[in-house]
Amino acid sequence: MLATYGSPLYVYDLDRVRAALADLRAALPQGAHVLYSLKANPHIDLVRELLAGGCRAELSSTGELNTALAAGADPATCFYTGPGKTAEELRTAITAGVRTFSTESLVDLRRVARVARESGREVDCVLRVNGAEAPGSAGMRMTGDSSQFGIDAAALAESGEELRGADLKGVRLVGFHFFPLTNAADEASLIAEMTASIRTAATLAGQLALDVSVLDLGGGFGAPFAQEGERPRYPGLAKALTAELDRHFPAWADGATEVLFESGRHLVGDSGTLLCTVSDVKDSRDTRFAVLDTGINHLGGLSGIGRLLPLSAVPLAIPADSPDGTGAAGGDPEGAPGGTDTPGPSRTRLVGPLCTPADTLGRGSVELPDLVVGRQLAIPNVGAYGATASLLGFLSRPAAAEVVVDGLYGADEPRVVSATRLALVREPVPARSAEPAGGTDRPDHGLSEENEENSEENTVGERTLTGTPAEETGDKPAEKTGDEPWDAGYVTVLRSVLSRLGTDVGPETSLRAAGLDSLALVELLVRLEETYAVTIPDDDLSPESFATAGSLWTVVEKVRAG
Amino acid sequence: MLATYGSPLYVYDLDRVRAALADLRAALPQGAHVLYSLKANPHIDLVRELLAGGCRAELSSTGELNTALAAGADPATCFYTGPGKTAEELRTAITAGVRTFSTESLVDLRRVARVARESGREVDCVLRVNGAEAPGSAGMRMTGDSSQFGIDAAALAESGEELRGADLKGVRLVGFHFFPLTNAADEASLIAEMTASIRTAATLAGQLALDVSVLDLGGGFGAPFAQEGERPRYPGLAKALTAELDRHFPAWADGATEVLFESGRHLVGDSGTLLCTVSDVKDSRDTRFAVLDTGINHLGGLSGIGRLLPLSAVPLAIPADSPDGTGAAGGDPEGAPGGTDTPGPSRTRLVGPLCTPADTLGRGSVELPDLVVGRQLAIPNVGAYGATASLLGFLSRPAAAEVVVDGLYGADEPRVVSATRLALVREPVPARSAEPAGGTDRPDHGLSEENEENSEENTVGERTLTGTPAEETGDKPAEKTGDEPWDAGYVTVLRSVLSRLGTDVGPETSLRAAGLDSLALVELLVRLEETYAVTIPDDDLSPESFATAGSLWTVVEKVRAG
Repeated sequence: MLATYGSPLYVYDLDRVRAALADLRAALPQGAHVLYSLKANPHIDLVRELLAGGCRAELSSTGELNTALAAGADPATCFYTGPGKTAEELRTAITAGVRTFSTESLVDLRRVARVARESGREVDCVLRVNGAEAPGSAGMRMTGDSSQFGIDAAALAESGEELRGADLKGVRLVGFHFFPLTNAADEASLIAEMTASIRTAATLAGQLALDVSVLDLGGGFGAPFAQEGERPRYPGLAKALTAELDRHFPAWADGATEVLFESGRHLVGDSGTLLCTVSDVKDSRDTRFAVLDTGINHLGGLSGIGRLLPLSAVPLAIPADSPDGTGAAGGDPEGAPGGTDTPGPSRTRLVGPLCTPADTLGRGSVELPDLVVGRQLAIPNVGAYGATASLLGFLSRPAAAEVVVDGLYGADEPRVVSATRLALVREPVPARSAEPAGGTDRPDHGLSEENEENSEENTVGERTLTGTPAEETGDKPAEKTGDEPWDAGYVTVLRSVLSRLGTDVGPETSLRAAGLDSLALVELLVRLEETYAVTIPDDDLSPESFATAGSLWTVVEKVRAG
Repeated sequence: MLATYGSPLYVYDLDRVRAALADLRAALPQGAHVLYSLKANPHIDLVRELLAGGCRAELSSTGELNTALAAGADPATCFYTGPGKTAEELRTAITAGVRTFSTESLVDLRRVARVARESGREVDCVLRVNGAEAPGSAGMRMTGDSSQFGIDAAALAESGEELRGADLKGVRLVGFHFFPLTNAADEASLIAEMTASIRTAATLAGQLALDVSVLDLGGGFGAPFAQEGERPRYPGLAKALTAELDRHFPAWADGATEVLFESGRHLVGDSGTLLCTVSDVKDSRDTRFAVLDTGINHLGGLSGIGRLLPLSAVPLAIPADSPDGTGAAGGDPEGAPGGTDTPGPSRTRLVGPLCTPADTLGRGSVELPDLVVGRQLAIPNVGAYGATASLLGFLSRPAAAEVVVDGLYGADEPRVVSATRLALVREPVPARSAEPAGGTDRPDHGLSEENEENSEENTVGERTLTGTPAEETGDKPAEKTGDEPWDAGYVTVLRSVLSRLGTDVGPETSLRAAGLDSLALVELLVRLEETYAVTIPDDDLSPESFATAGSLWTVVEKVRAG
């Protein structure tokens, strides 16, 4: 594959995508719909495969919409989500035929309504709910935290009046949207969350006198990332959710309430592998560096994967009976010296070719024997949040090729579906004609309205960045409760991200074992910083910091102490 | 500006770029050269301005090389750096006329030598040194750590034999390259580091019997990022460095040793401002969220800015005498309720529009009174590591527009130099023809050697993941299809760059009429070279070559034929 398309390259196997979809379907209540979240990987061939398998598209940008349409999506089945949807992108979506939107606030809802009216359409909206304590919670549910997503459930309950306001003409409120968890490996958490969402939806429906014809229970179905491992399975989920749905929405199975689930990484994560080649091997003091031809411009730009968490890289296997199965180092004319023959440092770090120390893919625990220049490596489980969640333009290097195959692992001769590469081009941005100064009319009410909004906003008056720095709000995190070194809120935060965290959490509890991967790490960091109103400096972010519940608390304590 | 080009957008002011260069020059020893590190911001207008001001280009990728050349750089003055340089990119650089390379290891050095020999050239190399404890350190120097960059000074001292080895024919060793610090605000650290580097260079020169005609002391000149502030000044630097240079390289001032400094962020950081607009303001429990129309897809993807660092956002000032200087929040039809009139939570978080909690730009300390929907904000000092160091492709949203002006802050009516936007396109990756299995000869030792290296690596043995490439190797850049003189892929390449190309493309089709400008020209060149695995020599690049689809194809054909 590398010989044919050059190194580095992503390989995505459609066979695995199909398998993931079949497994997920089997784990969900019969009759429920699966939405594919394009953010995980917007490659059109993957999107096409999932649509062909019966998925609908979950979109949150014009670019994703265009991809979904190009892949054959019926716009009427698309589900448009995301905070900060602009009037311009809403107009594009409605014009294209999208009819269902998840709205994140009253502002968002009013904007959808206005654009729909202006477009002469009526559209369906669901309200995204930031779930608070659920009514009748099973006791395992996370306490709702402040969030940029959705509307606090408590606030929503009192919004009945506003939700019937005249400025909402153009939308029909058809239900609710939840998304409380991400990347859950633990089925119990998922069941607790989703059943709580069902109860919350039922309660809110009563409070708001809303007929729930669409109920999006979100996702959070897990997948390993850049490490070896299997997709988690959820054998008990369908039964538990079906029972709760039957109880609160008895007519759902007859079609009165359409039940939706979303998935990105679970559907495509294990379909992708990043193949790459070792460009240089060098020792610096106590560390061996393997310089790869791939870096944070191709993988893990989002999560700072290398700085914080190990990744797996597997040398591509060489069959023992191969005529060339010996003398591995011959691949590169410069490869021989300094390679395997010297014992060298014990720890190996995988770094990329970018001229920045941030370009580290894996450190510390990477175990790669016989690392030589020219060695080809495979980084598994990077079908989601890989190529497009990376620093594509950084240092002006080409993107990795992306080769889509069908049956890579199952068949002797995989069929190559496509071989492409993203490329950055610079295109001109035409100037819009500026609004006449002081004009009160709106001469150009079509496509440049976003522009007008901006122009008008100019009228507000001069502002300066004034300083009474936030004293610190009353909302301190909870006090310490018992023998643990931490306060009561800490474990709640851990649990909100690490679904496999058991009930007994002590200082030695391994976060890795509890499900910490690089995506979870970002979540955890964000939540800790929010909860404790601190900023954890980069220097304190090391694999050691995130090793155990105790080691991470030590960092939090240190930062809180200033 | 936002009204004219839409929100969000970067504004870069060339006037500030010139000022930064003048200040830096004044802070450096007289006679030293300044290299601009394109990684900080490869926008061609900024590069052009800095080249015009006398900077040389510091490059570390083929993409940066192409930009520098398009901006008018003399390739003989370019300085090529970076770990993991592949033979293919070295070949491209040498063919383009680059003659000075910083080498990061003996493997790297041997590879440069081989490619130079194969290209029939001799090139200059400096050795990048991972400075250990410096001889005669001022005591403030950081202890050398293991690094992916450079060669440990101690190891280098013992490499005299190897550095005179036969496999280094093709390179002249001309000096050393240091880069121990980044973003130093503190002049004392910078002086300590750089004087130590000078001493280390002198010591190594003696140990290796090397005549130092090029000495790159690196950079590390600071700049604020995404916060208000001024570039640091270094009033004592020139004197301290001049004294140390005079002591260790007495003939340097006469030109015997060329002294180089590198700078990226210091030169362009404060030239750039990101203008954006508030899309939504919402309260969730104790926090007010301002959802912007810009996020980690436009800024700070590299640094996790929101998670790790505070950022400033300043409401845009409106002149008091503006006709529109009154009348508040009318900018957005949805903007009024829930905005300023309610007291609300005391802390505000700035988040982006991406559907991920990682999309946080500023938190906690962001003080923005009267935050309403439609408010325009300015994030200062983001000229470096902004647009291209972000998650450009994440969630498939458009990149921010980039508007280059001259004199934004000094003149009433800044001159707009350019208004452009990066865009991602997906282009085909042609399969390379595989090496005959077990082949020992190297039939095509010219332009496709990287390919061969990969292919050779393939002959080491069949890898399980490589499948059997033979089958899909039929797909060369494409077969000819009809009457046209070109193959089927050619028009696809043209179309990927020339948006106005019609459906009927014949030999006489004008490329200029189809949208060819100087930016498009570079793009087109790069894509053709990639698609056909060729390097089109400078001599073949004339206006006539790019006149029509037919004339350009003639050039491609000629180069392919060798």
